[in-house]
Amino acid sequence: MRVAVLTGGGDCPGLNAVIRAAVRKGVQEYGYDFVGFRDGWRGPLENDTVPLDIPAVRGILPRGGTVLGSSRTNPLRAENGIRRVRENLAEQEVDALVVIGGEDTLGVAARLADEHGVHVVGVPKTIDNDLSATDYTFGFDTAVGIATEAIDRLHTTAESHMRVLVVEVMGRHAGWIALHSGLAGGANVILIPERRFDVDQVCSWVSSRFRSSYAPIVVVAEGAMPRDGEVVLKDDSLDSFGHVRLSGVGEWLAKQIERRTGKEARTTVLGHVQRGGTPSAFDRWLATRFGLHAIDAVRDGAWGEMVALRATDIVRVPIAEATSRLKTVNPSLYREASVFFG
Amino acid sequence: MRVAVLTGGGDCPGLNAVIRAAVRKGVQEYGYDFVGFRDGWRGPLENDTVPLDIPAVRGILPRGGTVLGSSRTNPLRAENGIRRVRENLAEQEVDALVVIGGEDTLGVAARLADEHGVHVVGVPKTIDNDLSATDYTFGFDTAVGIATEAIDRLHTTAESHMRVLVVEVMGRHAGWIALHSGLAGGANVILIPERRFDVDQVCSWVSSRFRSSYAPIVVVAEGAMPRDGEVVLKDDSLDSFGHVRLSGVGEWLAKQIERRTGKEARTTVLGHVQRGGTPSAFDRWLATRFGLHAIDAVRDGAWGEMVALRATDIVRVPIAEATSRLKTVNPSLYREASVFFG
Amino acid sequence: MRVAVLTGGGDCPGLNAVIRAAVRKGVQEYGYDFVGFRDGWRGPLENDTVPLDIPAVRGILPRGGTVLGSSRTNPLRAENGIRRVRENLAEQEVDALVVIGGEDTLGVAARLADEHGVHVVGVPKTIDNDLSATDYTFGFDTAVGIATEAIDRLHTTAESHMRVLVVEVMGRHAGWIALHSGLAGGANVILIPERRFDVDQVCSWVSSRFRSSYAPIVVVAEGAMPRDGEVVLKDDSLDSFGHVRLSGVGEWLAKQIERRTGKEARTTVLGHVQRGGTPSAFDRWLATRFGLHAIDAVRDGAWGEMVALRATDIVRVPIAEATSRLKTVNPSLYREASVFFG
Amino acid sequence: MRVAVLTGGGDCPGLNAVIRAAVRKGVQEYGYDFVGFRDGWRGPLENDTVPLDIPAVRGILPRGGTVLGSSRTNPLRAENGIRRVRENLAEQEVDALVVIGGEDTLGVAARLADEHGVHVVGVPKTIDNDLSATDYTFGFDTAVGIATEAIDRLHTTAESHMRVLVVEVMGRHAGWIALHSGLAGGANVILIPERRFDVDQVCSWVSSRFRSSYAPIVVVAEGAMPRDGEVVLKDDSLDSFGHVRLSGVGEWLAKQIERRTGKEARTTVLGHVQRGGTPSAFDRWLATRFGLHAIDAVRDGAWGEMVALRATDIVRVPIAEATSRLKTVNPSLYREASVFFG
Repeated sequence: MRVAVLTGGGDCPGLNAVIRAAVRKGVQEYGYDFVGFRDGWRGPLENDTVPLDIPAVRGILPRGGTVLGSSRTNPLRAENGIRRVRENLAEQEVDALVVIGGEDTLGVAARLADEHGVHVVGVPKTIDNDLSATDYTFGFDTAVGIATEAIDRLHTTAESHMRVLVVEVMGRHAGWIALHSGLAGGANVILIPERRFDVDQVCSWVSSRFRSSYAPIVVVAEGAMPRDGEVVLKDDSLDSFGHVRLSGVGEWLAKQIERRTGKEARTTVLGHVQRGGTPSAFDRWLATRFGLHAIDAVRDGAWGEMVALRATDIVRVPIAEATSRLKTVNPSLYREASVFFG
Repeated sequence: MRVAVLTGGGDCPGLNAVIRAAVRKGVQEYGYDFVGFRDGWRGPLENDTVPLDIPAVRGILPRGGTVLGSSRTNPLRAENGIRRVRENLAEQEVDALVVIGGEDTLGVAARLADEHGVHVVGVPKTIDNDLSATDYTFGFDTAVGIATEAIDRLHTTAESHMRVLVVEVMGRHAGWIALHSGLAGGANVILIPERRFDVDQVCSWVSSRFRSSYAPIVVVAEGAMPRDGEVVLKDDSLDSFGHVRLSGVGEWLAKQIERRTGKEARTTVLGHVQRGGTPSAFDRWLATRFGLHAIDAVRDGAWGEMVALRATDIVRVPIAEATSRLKTVNPSLYREASVFFG
Repeated sequence: MRVAVLTGGGDCPGLNAVIRAAVRKGVQEYGYDFVGFRDGWRGPLENDTVPLDIPAVRGILPRGGTVLGSSRTNPLRAENGIRRVRENLAEQEVDALVVIGGEDTLGVAARLADEHGVHVVGVPKTIDNDLSATDYTFGFDTAVGIATEAIDRLHTTAESHMRVLVVEVMGRHAGWIALHSGLAGGANVILIPERRFDVDQVCSWVSSRFRSSYAPIVVVAEGAMPRDGEVVLKDDSLDSFGHVRLSGVGEWLAKQIERRTGKEARTTVLGHVQRGGTPSAFDRWLATRFGLHAIDAVRDGAWGEMVALRATDIVRVPIAEATSRLKTVNPSLYREASVFFG
Repeated sequence: MRVAVLTGGGDCPGLNAVIRAAVRKGVQEYGYDFVGFRDGWRGPLENDTVPLDIPAVRGILPRGGTVLGSSRTNPLRAENGIRRVRENLAEQEVDALVVIGGEDTLGVAARLADEHGVHVVGVPKTIDNDLSATDYTFGFDTAVGIATEAIDRLHTTAESHMRVLVVEVMGRHAGWIALHSGLAGGANVILIPERRFDVDQVCSWVSSRFRSSYAPIVVVAEGAMPRDGEVVLKDDSLDSFGHVRLSGVGEWLAKQIERRTGKEARTTVLGHVQRGGTPSAFDRWLATRFGLHAIDAVRDGAWGEMVALRATDIVRVPIAEATSRLKTVNPSLYREASVFFG
């Protein structure tokens, strides 16, 4: 049995842990051979491979990123993409393909498995934790940890100068990182994409915090948006639809708070540091288990399925089903957190 | 409604997060009054209290330990203990008591609720993660993170000198910390209390690691024990039953490895640093949610019940049932990890 | 003897360590009384004080920020500022004033001491490490550590996607943080305010890094500027002098690199997280020693002087002299680092 | 010019940074060739080498340990040791040898340079910071940081249980790590090898701390010793001279404190984690500069000299002189710290 592995989409702490676990178990327990495809779907599309054996995965467990490289290349959008992928899989004599990726990358995997009978097993990957089939995805805990540490740091500087600090964290479509890091960091306001926010309400929470002689921290997901009515249409930080641009909601909000409350406000955009560096212990454990179970899925011929976490168990679910629905923050969870606002 | 809170047993990162969340929600949403008992059950036994309101819980979320103090005092073993506790609860006009603790502390809580009708709600706490009713307890993720970071550090010194490093971690009765930190840290051998180990097998794994030009890391839970036959009876590191003393298995094992493999071996006992300091983001999130849901249990009059984590939900279970059985490492989980041994 | 303490300017990890050490030594060894002025020079200007004794400084050593608050208020620019400060010092019966601050805050202290005979002792504070009289200032080591950790994280994401990552760090007038964190983080380009950069040269280093199959990290101080000729005058990221705006050099540079090399480039602006949170061990040690020696300076009546680090010794220098010249990065140090460029 | 490099003695964070900097500068600026000797002096003694070029040093800057391996092999104690070293240097066509090590390793280097005319340049390395010729050695700042973080953690557990925590840190002959981490961690007692301690005095400080309702942290260097008179001769933790065994002073002291004060006391021995893992930013900066300047010393033919830090400059000093005297903690520094005792 010859197994190929690829990692697609944005990088995420834990990718290397998946690769290592799959190779260790595949080689040692089942005697499989491995080959790596470079840069996500670009690898099988352009037949670009890298050797993958036990020496190649030594020492990579604690390292962020992916030794296989990644890209957003989509064979469905390339000319004869699916055909070229299938030909190259054949040329590489690949019996099974382990695909580690998010919605887009796994979407291709589902098509290949369901429509073309390719022997594909999936491993879910999204730092945003917004895949519905799994309780958690690896990388998320690391990102939350980094954001929480940043919020911890910002508390002291906010207090010393009695100013508002707005922290913009990752999360275009789901507010999981904002919710978890905001709760863990003791934020006074948490804003998520799932629920449009009312700037006046935000300012009221901010002012209330100052009344108890503390300075407020506002955590805002990059995809959070104000209610329509509140947006001044001519503002140049708006996109063509009159919405605040996703990349700039933190800065926009800080300006609004300054204008409306008269308090000094500063923004910090955490950006790429949230997805880099060594994975947390939780993410290493989860990613390692995903890798081990993905190889068991290969052994069992569970094509078209992906591994997922349910409580403390690793289970299998159809890739197609798993990637069809975004897992957003439940309103009751958000309401639960709101006791700390203000 | 006047609610008392106490924290009992060994300290654990996240205790303050529970207290803060309970007080914030109780005061703000339900208008409750709070009072803290000092040092676990010693507080209600000796009527030793501390004021507990919103100013008292400001800024404690990221702090380890417990602002209420803790102890292992057990009113069941004190003269007229239960009677004195009930009298002091009455004197303090306490309508409900939130008890945060492990098996022993919660055991008392269950007795008070079930046999004496005291209005008790429980919050599970054990850094060892060995309570059967909940997927995880807070403090565990922090301890695993600290142990993993230590293992990461030891890898480089092991490689530089080509010596064996034995890391003794917490876990008298269950090997969860050893399993998770060993897996996350890339240990070459993991030994847990649930399964007696064979020193020859350990030495064989150690030697195999050296053959691939790497130096082995052995993670051993403090409660792990060798098979009976292997223990030299007169060895002064044995207790009166001829077993290796719990506190010294790491050092004992390092000596055995040196003697049998001829390789230099060193021991590191992580000890109390595993339970101190700021809680991880995961533990702050879990502990905060436990605190919020404990107050909802008070509101609902769910006496004799405790909060617990099931997947990503907080549920309620009877305290008595929850504390009756130790949650040990499943043999299949341990076998899963063994692919990395050697 | 009654000693007042104030902290002015931007907050900086280590301020609390100075305050604690001064109070501990002053009270315990010399029997002094203390009083704190709030928010830098605003405190003595508006007679706003806070009690300062040993209980008030318990537990503040590891905490970032300043328990006394800070501001950029300058009594020299307030009506009758100096007179009001002197009157309030008299009303508070202050015999000596310990001023912890940077160039501006200490400048006022020097004027008060030299022109008005006020009993002032100074402690230097600048996270940028750009005060000429001292080898290091506290806060700098912490900031460099945070920036280095961020660069470490960004390496893995840069490699995985083979893109350029530009990291903008603090440093308006001096490149110390950029130089130290860039060197420690293994950056491939370091740009500092002391030396205008040539975008073509930067792009050449960037391209050279890609040729060895690695992805480049560019560390740029917020005050770094390109050579004049390279700036497109109509670019809206320029200020009224046609220079790149200080706050945006990272983003500007990333765009230039993308345009000129055809490689994807991303920017991370570290911002306020660099100045928050717990001080590093080095900064706690330095700040503590500054506090101890400042009180010895008070005892010795060394008015108008400030403490400074020379190698491993704490010495005294005239405040006026110490704040008159910016300490910039020596060209030979920058050349030393350039062996790692490209 | 062909340059050999070796690393000897205990491993230390920063060794790889020295190697990388030396190779980068030597190859890129001066066109030198490099070769690595394995495992300290064992390499040249047994002619065991490893290739050393720019690809070999990529990515090693943040890694602890040493890619060249280390040992305590001493050619002065091997039969014909010096002759074999010289023959192997000749066989490898080595023109210059960069020796990175502590007192013992550099002692051999000094002999080779001074008595046999070997072209040797030294780089000082001791995690204990006890070499007299340099203000700091790399690895020390990392070790102090790890110890300080551990002390931070132990504070919360000490307070929660109102018990004494004794932390044993590295330092057989000099108390630098104990002094710096104790000061930075807010320890209540610091004990160093330079000054025998009085157990009654320690107990008095411990008791005084409890009187202010806080729990004490005692930091003790592994080489610290009680005054002779205080040692109970029959105690089995004493060596044959009636002294406390070096490895066990922490545990011995905790027992003494329990016995004399009646307070519970626990010991944590930090051990090898202090010397492992990624170097701090300060250590990476210092080690990198040592590597760059060592190659300049090679270029200048400064045989028999080693690089050293003086304030913020790198200077050269004769190896023989530099290693002849231990740098111990100055009594005035220790007295300065004592204001925090009790």
